[in-house]
Amino acid sequence: MALKDYMQVMQPAIETDLQQFINQSIPAEYPELRAMLTYHMGWEGEGAGPEAQGKRIRPLLVLLCAEAAGGNWRSALPAAAAVELLHNFSLIHDDIQDNSPLRRNRPAVWVKWGAAQAINAGDVLFTLAFVSLQRLSVTLPPQNVLLANQILQNTCLRLTQGQYLDMSYESRSTLPLDAYWPMIGGKTSALLSCCCELGALSAGVGEGQRAIFREYGSSLGLAFQVLDDWLGIWGDVALTGKSAESDLVSGKKTLPVITALSKDGPFARRWALGKIASQEVPALAQMLEEEGIYAYTLETAENLTTQAVEALQQATRACSSDGQVNAAQALQELTHSLLRRKH
Amino acid sequence: MALKDYMQVMQPAIETDLQQFINQSIPAEYPELRAMLTYHMGWEGEGAGPEAQGKRIRPLLVLLCAEAAGGNWRSALPAAAAVELLHNFSLIHDDIQDNSPLRRNRPAVWVKWGAAQAINAGDVLFTLAFVSLQRLSVTLPPQNVLLANQILQNTCLRLTQGQYLDMSYESRSTLPLDAYWPMIGGKTSALLSCCCELGALSAGVGEGQRAIFREYGSSLGLAFQVLDDWLGIWGDVALTGKSAESDLVSGKKTLPVITALSKDGPFARRWALGKIASQEVPALAQMLEEEGIYAYTLETAENLTTQAVEALQQATRACSSDGQVNAAQALQELTHSLLRRKH
Repeated sequence: MALKDYMQVMQPAIETDLQQFINQSIPAEYPELRAMLTYHMGWEGEGAGPEAQGKRIRPLLVLLCAEAAGGNWRSALPAAAAVELLHNFSLIHDDIQDNSPLRRNRPAVWVKWGAAQAINAGDVLFTLAFVSLQRLSVTLPPQNVLLANQILQNTCLRLTQGQYLDMSYESRSTLPLDAYWPMIGGKTSALLSCCCELGALSAGVGEGQRAIFREYGSSLGLAFQVLDDWLGIWGDVALTGKSAESDLVSGKKTLPVITALSKDGPFARRWALGKIASQEVPALAQMLEEEGIYAYTLETAENLTTQAVEALQQATRACSSDGQVNAAQALQELTHSLLRRKH
Repeated sequence: MALKDYMQVMQPAIETDLQQFINQSIPAEYPELRAMLTYHMGWEGEGAGPEAQGKRIRPLLVLLCAEAAGGNWRSALPAAAAVELLHNFSLIHDDIQDNSPLRRNRPAVWVKWGAAQAINAGDVLFTLAFVSLQRLSVTLPPQNVLLANQILQNTCLRLTQGQYLDMSYESRSTLPLDAYWPMIGGKTSALLSCCCELGALSAGVGEGQRAIFREYGSSLGLAFQVLDDWLGIWGDVALTGKSAESDLVSGKKTLPVITALSKDGPFARRWALGKIASQEVPALAQMLEEEGIYAYTLETAENLTTQAVEALQQATRACSSDGQVNAAQALQELTHSLLRRKH
């Protein structure tokens, strides 16, 4: 079975489980509250559909890791739903915090219902993530459900710490090089690491094996984010398409930017002068390239990709059944598709 | 031991546990994030001190219920901290949602650090509530810790649903009489009910007994809120002191207001014309009195108080040890002090 075969069965199952779970958890007496959630999840309202739902990479990762660890992916659905709910909670609050009017090309929840209701809708998804995880009790012993809770709680702590750093960096004109890793460790890597560990846990494997899955998710998350940062400056859309979409225009503190700022060269001097206009983007991207930042960022992404692939190999070395081997291969395929992407 | 004797030992223990727990959970690398939390909790920053900490009624309720149910209050501290953290999460988000600049007579977190950071600080407290509860594992079997999680999760769902109703009522000029109870059931009563049930659970009592503690907390919460609504119009400060602090000026959908609106009499006709100025307050309070709303609200508060007292008697009927009997008496004292208060 290839990745696409797994996706064909897993993705509809994830969608169905999430929809049923939200409908069961929010009583019909709160139709508008439900509407906010089903709109944000991409199932209802203007522009609903696969594009609006996002790729559901995180729950897919949970289910594939559960299979690769020798479990049954269906038993891991409560954990898969939990990570997707947590991810979507963070998106709703993120959009308010960043004042971003669009999410997946549709008006963000706060634009449609106001910031006050959107904060609360995020809080509901946050709660539902924990409620969903608790459903693991059907197949796991209580001690392991508590462990799953603890993993999700630590992830929330790291997420909120990463978010704090990200926001506090906005107002700072200069940053040390090591400011980057705790931020993306919290904002991107913690949740992917949580996905892989929860997948392994729901298959019932012990701490040693779980640590390797956790490590795989962590490297995958870091590699994913560094590549994202690279694409945000040198990707097709950022550089040649619409330069307004370049991370340089939004002022994001990405790895290339933080690295360049620590070098205190021509780019750093231009950055200190204030907001970058879209017509400056090609010249500034060139400037970064000349300072060695293009190559450094790509190399960092590649090293992290190698780490992720090796951790995955280690995590799945002991795979014995055909099912496990297939799932491990699908994970490898997923890893490559995420870390070799062009946009 | 009277209530004040319990308070003398329990309140410092609550404060110490909360402080240590927050410091352990938020690494020292995030000093500003910690500062937001310790400021909001009333321990640090301008105006810090007992006034800024609030009364910590909720954790006190947990500990007294634990004792009355035959447990040891120290074992219930993780649950006590959890409800206080959850309460404070909701206050931080509430202040942003209501655009309220003051909390306990100090600038709200969002005023000092901006709404974006304040949303995140609330999310941190929300997470910490669950992390704290997990500490019950030290004394409770895993199955009961899971049950405690479930109780807290249900409370979060009810809180967020109540918050949703409260905000959605703001824009409505008229409301049916039965709109009130689900709102305060979620906003006030759910958490007090949770306190009493978690206290009983941490003492290890079974579902039947827990249900009575839950019922006590629920009635206590409803009675507390209805009395609060009454005081918001006919209390000393609201009516004679500074009329600007009257709930009539803020436009809150309290029980007296919702009841009067459903009667469609002189008050409802005035309400429909728009915002009430502070100089109108005495005349409008009089108008409500003539429509029977003063008496109805007070009667409702008294009926609910009776229900709470009876539930408490039922919950503590089986108290056998001196410790249990003392705690039950202290709970009765606390109930009366909350439900006979003048402001």
